[in-house]
Amino acid sequence: MAKKDIVLTGDRPTGPLHLGHFVGSLQKRVELQDKYKQFVMIADWQGFTDNFDNPQKLRDNVTQVMLDYLAVGIDPKKTTFFIQSLIPQIAELYFIYLNFVTVSRLGRNPTVKAEIQQKGYGENLTAGFLTYPVHQAADITIVKGTLVPAGADQNPIIEQSNEIVRKFNSTYNVDIFPEIKIVESAVSRLPGTDGKAKMSKSMGNAIFLCDTEDVVAKKVMTMYTDPDHIKVDMPGKIDGNTVFAYLDVFDTDKQMVESLKAQYQAGGLGDVKVKKYLIEVLNNFLEPIRLRRNEFAQDKEAVLDIVIKGSEQVRCIAADTMLEVRKAIHLDYI
Amino acid sequence: MAKKDIVLTGDRPTGPLHLGHFVGSLQKRVELQDKYKQFVMIADWQGFTDNFDNPQKLRDNVTQVMLDYLAVGIDPKKTTFFIQSLIPQIAELYFIYLNFVTVSRLGRNPTVKAEIQQKGYGENLTAGFLTYPVHQAADITIVKGTLVPAGADQNPIIEQSNEIVRKFNSTYNVDIFPEIKIVESAVSRLPGTDGKAKMSKSMGNAIFLCDTEDVVAKKVMTMYTDPDHIKVDMPGKIDGNTVFAYLDVFDTDKQMVESLKAQYQAGGLGDVKVKKYLIEVLNNFLEPIRLRRNEFAQDKEAVLDIVIKGSEQVRCIAADTMLEVRKAIHLDYI
Repeated sequence: MAKKDIVLTGDRPTGPLHLGHFVGSLQKRVELQDKYKQFVMIADWQGFTDNFDNPQKLRDNVTQVMLDYLAVGIDPKKTTFFIQSLIPQIAELYFIYLNFVTVSRLGRNPTVKAEIQQKGYGENLTAGFLTYPVHQAADITIVKGTLVPAGADQNPIIEQSNEIVRKFNSTYNVDIFPEIKIVESAVSRLPGTDGKAKMSKSMGNAIFLCDTEDVVAKKVMTMYTDPDHIKVDMPGKIDGNTVFAYLDVFDTDKQMVESLKAQYQAGGLGDVKVKKYLIEVLNNFLEPIRLRRNEFAQDKEAVLDIVIKGSEQVRCIAADTMLEVRKAIHLDYI
Repeated sequence: MAKKDIVLTGDRPTGPLHLGHFVGSLQKRVELQDKYKQFVMIADWQGFTDNFDNPQKLRDNVTQVMLDYLAVGIDPKKTTFFIQSLIPQIAELYFIYLNFVTVSRLGRNPTVKAEIQQKGYGENLTAGFLTYPVHQAADITIVKGTLVPAGADQNPIIEQSNEIVRKFNSTYNVDIFPEIKIVESAVSRLPGTDGKAKMSKSMGNAIFLCDTEDVVAKKVMTMYTDPDHIKVDMPGKIDGNTVFAYLDVFDTDKQMVESLKAQYQAGGLGDVKVKKYLIEVLNNFLEPIRLRRNEFAQDKEAVLDIVIKGSEQVRCIAADTMLEVRKAIHLDYI
């Protein structure tokens, strides 16, 4: 990662962010903002592709997501926040890129393919949804982003972006857009509270950054552990046990975690006891985030203003990029 | 057609315009500009979908197409000219519309289907080309166009636009976009000089509005007539005879045409003689167009300026439309 690298990432404003987001990307962004120019985008247009029948949800969650960003320590002095739909140049670049990708290639994208299947789109697959990876290519490259802090599951999207970028550069014999790389977190994926591989809003297995102490406690108490660990004195399994997976990530007292694991495996440590300990750990972790969130939430207009102002800055950068693009494609009239 | 109707049409800047354009649409535009608010768009983004590897061609032809418009009498005082790619709001609306149309519906569009086959795209079909009818829906509706002077072959595109518009309006319970109708010309289609059903740049069977007298003469002399009419004294067929098809359209002396037809059918009128007559008719028709074209061509910068200024006006109209759209989809942040 050279100093000239530019970081871009973002989230769809479809709900508040959760611990999975924190572990997989937010934490990394807090780290990267000190080293690189960083952009964080609220991806309302991308959210629109599967929420076009209820866009009010997107509008409502823009502020929620911004509050989460600020609460975890993404700092508007170091990071430029913007709203995707406030940058018309992204739509222009997206249209241009659509000419550098075939319909069949889009259908073969494994990430999109899995989502299409999961959502059961079939014949109802919209052109907007099929082409959202092209929109992402435009999102990243409009600010000439090179680093995307995300999970490895985003690799097919980034690969597709790079294919488009290479084809664009080579068609016009230019060097406008650099290659894009994913920056993975140490722990790239947090399991859901139900033990499923991925924490996700839509699967109802998420602990949100804005959850109250009580809600966190309730969610942890129903957490998936070792289904065969029925009695306290029985030995229990650590592997695939969500409670210990969370302790590994969120407890800074590694010695304590090791000792609990040993006890649990030997028998004599009940699920309720470990869960109560995890509740304490998680609430300790979340407390400063909640406090900052509540503070920022006092003035929601100011929060929205941060991202509106950031969008103005990005529009200028995007306009410069489009000038270069227009020159490359010989459609620079003015 | 109510007084509040708005006319929008346009051409891809892939080459100069020909007699087919004149008969099918340009003539109608000259008529409509006196009755309605009219927009004429240079569709460079649409041209880009199958010329992305040679966009310089598009750039070069913008002025040529503008000269053709002015030469036939489309009047910048009555008609607003604009360049498609200079209206970023079209790209935004296009993206929104892509969520209101399925991939399979796009593949079933008969006009696009025929073009895909003709161009032999197969697996190389780009997302940009497949979705160009959605771009057209955005082109027309960004200025709230209701009337499109075009041939009946454009009906599937307009039908698709109306489907999108209806779905948009009904999803958000708004009445932002009106239905679109085609305004057909009396003669909607002029055959090519080779006798094929349609005159087309790409098929090399076109007489351009900017062709010189000599070029017109040469093209008419090779024109398709009645292949069985080998000798002058033989009776010839009028039906499917391109020379007479052109006389029907371009000769104002209808009596003369009828008398020539009678002679030709009876036998005794040679192809060369009728062709020479057609050359005279066409050159008489084209002469004032050529003169005006040459006059405007003296100052090409002024011509480009007309369409640049028009684009500025359309950007304001488009911005207003997008404000309405953003309000409807609840993504109005500012």
